[in-house]
Parts: sequence; C-alpha cells; structure tokens
Amino acid sequence: MIHKTGVIFKVIREKAIVLVSGGLDSCVTAAIAAQDYELIFLHLNYRQKTEKRELQAFNDLGDFYHVEKRVIVDVSFFQNIGGSSLTDPKIDVTIADLETKNIPSSYVPFRNANILSIAASHAEVLGAVKIFIGAVEEDSSGYPDCRENFFAAFNHILHIGTKPDTKLEIVTPVINLKKWQIVAKGLELGSPLDKTWSCYQNEDEACGVCDSCALRLRGFQKNGIEDPLPYKVRPNYIA
Amino acid sequence: MIHKTGVIFKVIREKAIVLVSGGLDSCVTAAIAAQDYELIFLHLNYRQKTEKRELQAFNDLGDFYHVEKRVIVDVSFFQNIGGSSLTDPKIDVTIADLETKNIPSSYVPFRNANILSIAASHAEVLGAVKIFIGAVEEDSSGYPDCRENFFAAFNHILHIGTKPDTKLEIVTPVINLKKWQIVAKGLELGSPLDKTWSCYQNEDEACGVCDSCALRLRGFQKNGIEDPLPYKVRPNYIA
Repeated sequence: MIHKTGVIFKVIREKAIVLVSGGLDSCVTAAIAAQDYELIFLHLNYRQKTEKRELQAFNDLGDFYHVEKRVIVDVSFFQNIGGSSLTDPKIDVTIADLETKNIPSSYVPFRNANILSIAASHAEVLGAVKIFIGAVEEDSSGYPDCRENFFAAFNHILHIGTKPDTKLEIVTPVINLKKWQIVAKGLELGSPLDKTWSCYQNEDEACGVCDSCALRLRGFQKNGIEDPLPYKVRPNYIA
Repeated sequence: MIHKTGVIFKVIREKAIVLVSGGLDSCVTAAIAAQDYELIFLHLNYRQKTEKRELQAFNDLGDFYHVEKRVIVDVSFFQNIGGSSLTDPKIDVTIADLETKNIPSSYVPFRNANILSIAASHAEVLGAVKIFIGAVEEDSSGYPDCRENFFAAFNHILHIGTKPDTKLEIVTPVINLKKWQIVAKGLELGSPLDKTWSCYQNEDEACGVCDSCALRLRGFQKNGIEDPLPYKVRPNYIA
C-alpha cells in the first residue's frame, strides 16, 4: 500500500498458483513467484511416507509468504496405482546413485501431468494466470515428465483445452538450475530453506542417503554451507 | 481358445483401458475396443449428482463385456474446485439448448486432462497400450477439452512424459460421430444401450431436459427408435 495525500492505493497483483511440496525446489520457486504475483499455494497429498512432515513444511512456507489461499488436494489414488516406492510400502526406496540415469523406484508414473492438470482446473476457477512448479530437469533423477519439453507441450494443451478467455501458463523458474544453484538462489532471495523438507524416507531426521537427501546435501555442500536440517548421516557427496 | 489336434491355443490380446462413465458414448467405445483388446474398465467418481446410477451402469457394462479388472478412482477433489453444476449443488444444471455453442454450467474445468492423466498413470503400471475414451467433438456441448486436436496434443505429451519403453496412445473412436451415429453403431455392435445412463440430474427417471438427456433422446429419435430408459418427460428434439 502506498500512502499519498491521504489516499490509499492498493497494488492489485495477478494471481499465481504455486505447487508446494514443501521441498527446496518449491520453496525457491515460491520465492521467485512472490516477487510478481499474489500467491495461491497448492499441495498434493498422495499419502507419501513423509506426507505429515511435508504438510508442515507447506504451512510453514505459507505462513512465511503470507499466503491466504492454501489448497490441499487428496490424490490418494496414487496409492492404488502402485509402481512407486513413494506410495507403496512394499518397494524399497532406491539408495542414491547420482551417476547413472536410471529411473529410480520412487517414480510415480506420469505424476507431473496429473499435478499440472489438477493445478490447471483450480487455476481456471480461481482466476490464476500462472502455475509455478519447481521442476528441475538436470537433477530430476531421470523422470521423463520433469523435462522442459514436457512442460512446453503441456502449455500447448492448456491453451487448447481451457475456455477461450482463460490465459494460463506453466512457469518453471528453476528447471535449468542445478541443485547448488537453487540453494544459492534461495539464499539470495532470503527463502526460509530451514523450513523445507526433502527426505523421502524419514520425518524427524532426514536419512541422508535417499536420492532426494543426496541431491540436497550435495547442493548445500557445493555452496560450502551446512544444511540446517537434522540428518541421520551426512555423507560427503562432493568428494 | 482354438482347439486343434488336442492342443489349446490361447489368444493373448494386448490390454486397453476404457474410460467408462456409464453413458452411451463410453458403452459404444467399449464395444469397439472389445473387438481387439482385453479390456480394463476405469471409472472416475467425482461425486457427481448421479454417481450411484453411473456406477451401476459401469458394473452392468463390465459384466456384459466380462471385464475382470475394474478400477474406480475417487477424484472428489473436483467437488472442491467448484465451477460446475455436476459437482456443485449450488449451481443449477443448464436447461438444454442444442443450438448455441455456449459452454454450459455442467463444465468441469480441464476435466479431460485430469481423466487422461489418471488413465495414463494406470496404463503405465498395468501394461495397457491404449486408452479408449468416448469423447465426442460435435455433440460435446462446447467443452474445449473434447476436441480432436486436444487429444492429439495429449498423445504428444504421453509420448514425451512416460518411460522410454512405454507405448501408449489415446483412442477416440466416436469423436467424429453424431449422437445418432453412436446409437446406430451401438445397435450394430449389439451394445447393451439399455444398461447405460446419461442424465446429469436424476437417478431413477431421466429428466429428459438436461443437455445430456436432450442429446441422447435426439440420437434415438433420429434412428426412429425409442430410448429404452425411463424418462420423466420425452420432448421431441427433431421437430
């Protein structure tokens, strides 16, 4: 608000939906979106092993960015699809292997298409003009639906599959960043990285060995900074 | 099975997911898919007003086509999105107007993208090679995500967004048919049209005046055949 000769001008900003899992990437994506838009936070609960901890991170980040509209969508049907260690307790989480490009067991088939479709449905009703998602191509563990060409193709179906007057676009501001660059960007923007959660395995102390922990730890290590989260083990990933 | 000199050959067919709402279009689509594929039926429960009746139709059709694998996915998050008379009891169902091209109040934003994404996730895990959907372009009441170019674009994101060894394609066998042609095709293939349900409003007696009833009644009327379902009123739509 700007006060000028007794008149109050309220800055009206366009709305953007930010997909917030509660991890590093979504935190920094929210920080970037907050520079230009009024934020709507959208979280998907697919009953992943660490959902409770992720939801806490989601709300901590929402408080930090003063987000009024927070939407949580139950997509527990993912549990019944199977094929992923994130939702199926019978499949072990793959131990991190940052060198190979194999698709890890934490893969939920075609997950991002589901996520973007849900976000788009909400965006059309809530009048948002952008959908921000913290997808990362190079550190994405080989997920086929994390690549830039996938999001470009999705923007095309958004254009032809929504109402004629709907202007809606997916924005992937960290897609070409390495994890260490995301950490650096977060620090630069004053994002609350200490309020995020990344571990696929544990909720109290991060395991330090799952793909997600390994990528995160390496990101902080490359910045020469200690990750503020508690870890069971903290392997050195930049040896 | 073919018996020949005492040896039993079992015909192995590739699997196809058929999206079955329980209406005319999905019934005839299933009939077409059944000619070449082992069927998996997929039904989405988004707590539409007539869900109970649709589920009955889904199972009646599954029995008719001897479908072993039937998947029902709870997508009740549609209820919370709002913006549609199908799920929001506060919005009246639009009275049929078959002449104009306005998007009716029964529109669920970006519904087909959500449906196809869910189907694709299941298909990848269940090893299906096709997803059959009974979308109809010309009788689609103006839904933007029912057009042929939308499905073509979605096939592109299926190709780039799934695992490299996944071969998956959306098939829309009735997309260019008028409703009367779908009825005719159903009759030709011996589909159990009497087991389907189309009304958006009622579960015992079809209302006869919602968009879906109007299109259906007109389809039967153009074939000179009485729709086997019970109706509260049966306006003449081919006057």
